[in-house]
Amino acid sequence: MTSHGVIQTPIFMPVGTAGTVKAVHQRDLLQEVNAEIILGNTYHLYLRPGTSILQQAGGLHQFMNWPKPILTDSGGYQVYSLANNRKITEEGVKFKSHIDGSNHFFSPESVMDIERAIGADIIMAFDECTPYPCDFTYARKSMEMTHRWLDRCITRVNETEALYKYEQTLFPIVQGSTYAELRKISAEYIASKGAGGNAIGGLSVGEPAPMMYESVELVNSILPKDKPRYLMGVGTPTNILENIALGVDMFDCVMPTRNARNGMLFTWQGKINIRNEKWKDCFEPIDEQGTAWVDQTYTKAYLRHLFYSGEMLGPMMASVHNLAFYLDLVRTARTKIEEGVFWEWKNSVVQDLDRRL
Amino acid sequence: MTSHGVIQTPIFMPVGTAGTVKAVHQRDLLQEVNAEIILGNTYHLYLRPGTSILQQAGGLHQFMNWPKPILTDSGGYQVYSLANNRKITEEGVKFKSHIDGSNHFFSPESVMDIERAIGADIIMAFDECTPYPCDFTYARKSMEMTHRWLDRCITRVNETEALYKYEQTLFPIVQGSTYAELRKISAEYIASKGAGGNAIGGLSVGEPAPMMYESVELVNSILPKDKPRYLMGVGTPTNILENIALGVDMFDCVMPTRNARNGMLFTWQGKINIRNEKWKDCFEPIDEQGTAWVDQTYTKAYLRHLFYSGEMLGPMMASVHNLAFYLDLVRTARTKIEEGVFWEWKNSVVQDLDRRL
Repeated sequence: MTSHGVIQTPIFMPVGTAGTVKAVHQRDLLQEVNAEIILGNTYHLYLRPGTSILQQAGGLHQFMNWPKPILTDSGGYQVYSLANNRKITEEGVKFKSHIDGSNHFFSPESVMDIERAIGADIIMAFDECTPYPCDFTYARKSMEMTHRWLDRCITRVNETEALYKYEQTLFPIVQGSTYAELRKISAEYIASKGAGGNAIGGLSVGEPAPMMYESVELVNSILPKDKPRYLMGVGTPTNILENIALGVDMFDCVMPTRNARNGMLFTWQGKINIRNEKWKDCFEPIDEQGTAWVDQTYTKAYLRHLFYSGEMLGPMMASVHNLAFYLDLVRTARTKIEEGVFWEWKNSVVQDLDRRL
Repeated sequence: MTSHGVIQTPIFMPVGTAGTVKAVHQRDLLQEVNAEIILGNTYHLYLRPGTSILQQAGGLHQFMNWPKPILTDSGGYQVYSLANNRKITEEGVKFKSHIDGSNHFFSPESVMDIERAIGADIIMAFDECTPYPCDFTYARKSMEMTHRWLDRCITRVNETEALYKYEQTLFPIVQGSTYAELRKISAEYIASKGAGGNAIGGLSVGEPAPMMYESVELVNSILPKDKPRYLMGVGTPTNILENIALGVDMFDCVMPTRNARNGMLFTWQGKINIRNEKWKDCFEPIDEQGTAWVDQTYTKAYLRHLFYSGEMLGPMMASVHNLAFYLDLVRTARTKIEEGVFWEWKNSVVQDLDRRL
């Protein structure tokens, strides 16, 4: 439940990095993808268009004309993965923009102010996302700092008001790399804050999937079950189903959109590389089971031609398809949970999902 | 009147080079742009996906799922402007593909066969489009060859059948560069063929606008008035209105889509370079008078942000806008003609149309 509507879980959030889910019209995101919430990247939005423009527009919802809920990350992940010359101290992170090399500084306080200006319904705490692998000592110190940063985020959010006429909910983030001992400490610390929802960060950064599942299982045994649990940056369709089985409610990932732009389609039957020669005279629909209009209206041969010819319509159609599939995936999972047959169903579909067609 | 529906004139045809109007979903082309006919490029479609795929698909309409009329050019213009190592003889044109350097040969006969395979409702004769400037002797010889090629096109079309279950109409093309003497000869020759429609080629290739208007006026005084007259590759909104005044019924041009991808918007008030700093905090609609959903739904500041950030949604929105504007332009012209106030209206709007906002 947010100010912009109720979100049914489990849910997948399309990534709308810079105020747009790449290559998809907002209207298609609503009507064809059936997105219930999207994610905005604080790092990108802070650099472009910047908080001044967003405030003048009345927040990101108004700016991009998106009527449903938005979640913003804290920018932390991008500072570590995209920005240059970053220097992390207790105070915060100094970094250079990946766009123009300009100098910037993010602190828990400044990030909360930026997320206030963006105006998402759910705002993420500023954390350090450790890489994989990460030595134990670094992971422990980083986690402890992330906890101190969380307290600063909470203080800042409590002493400021939302800028627009709706509430913003802060989600704290569990860290601790792949160390069970640290994950347990972190989950207990995060749970103790009584937030409206909780996130699991620092996974899907290169560790083997079983290691991710172990961490999630452990953390979810500690985080409250009556509050949404959000696994950040995950993942493949199979990753998503396995983590739903472990109690995760919310997901986001660039995979459906990024892979779409490279011609990779996800379907219930498996993955399709549409650039492959084999599709050139396949006049079957893009995806007979697909829920978006592009799926039944256009053929694999046509989509292959668009990619092969470098036409923008290829990535556009593939993005709509993949996002609609991801939403269909979590919606179907929800139905199976309600019917009490999720486990059996999940085990029957994951093999197909990972297959290359 | 074509097999895929009646076309109201004057009309503008969005250019769908390789089986897609760049950056626009077919659905939006139908419902938002209100396109009544689109143009396909024979040169591009012949190279990719090729006639074999198009025939297997049941023609271009089926392949790209476009229910309304299509016109295909003859590929001649692209052979001269894009292909490499071209060699023109009486027989036809040898050229190398601009994509992979492979060798190809177009003759009037082979182009008619290709246009049969593509299956457009209106197919253009194979001609030589002379550049500007062009010396008189070359222009005369080229025009004479274009006339002989036309006869070969007519023969080929008469001795072959449409491959799909609808008629294809051949339009011959007037050439003659900017020479009134040649234009007159060519128009008379073309008119003598009694085709279902006639085209004016070899203009909008760099000559001054008044020179184009003079040629069009002369040619249109000869071409039959009860058959559609199509001015190829034109042009700016003002060019279109001036040529409508001279009796032109059909237009095509890459300008609305190409300029859209560069951030240039056409409006009734003038031209907008949306990348310009001045739009960064302009929270007015993209175009208050615009007919497409993007026009009222999104602000100039948002569209500017999309272009500035290199997001695909920028070109996507701008393409829908510009095409919808071009269709609105010709639709409005039609209304003004019916009301008998076209001239006055045209003269009152052309100054605005050329203005830079």
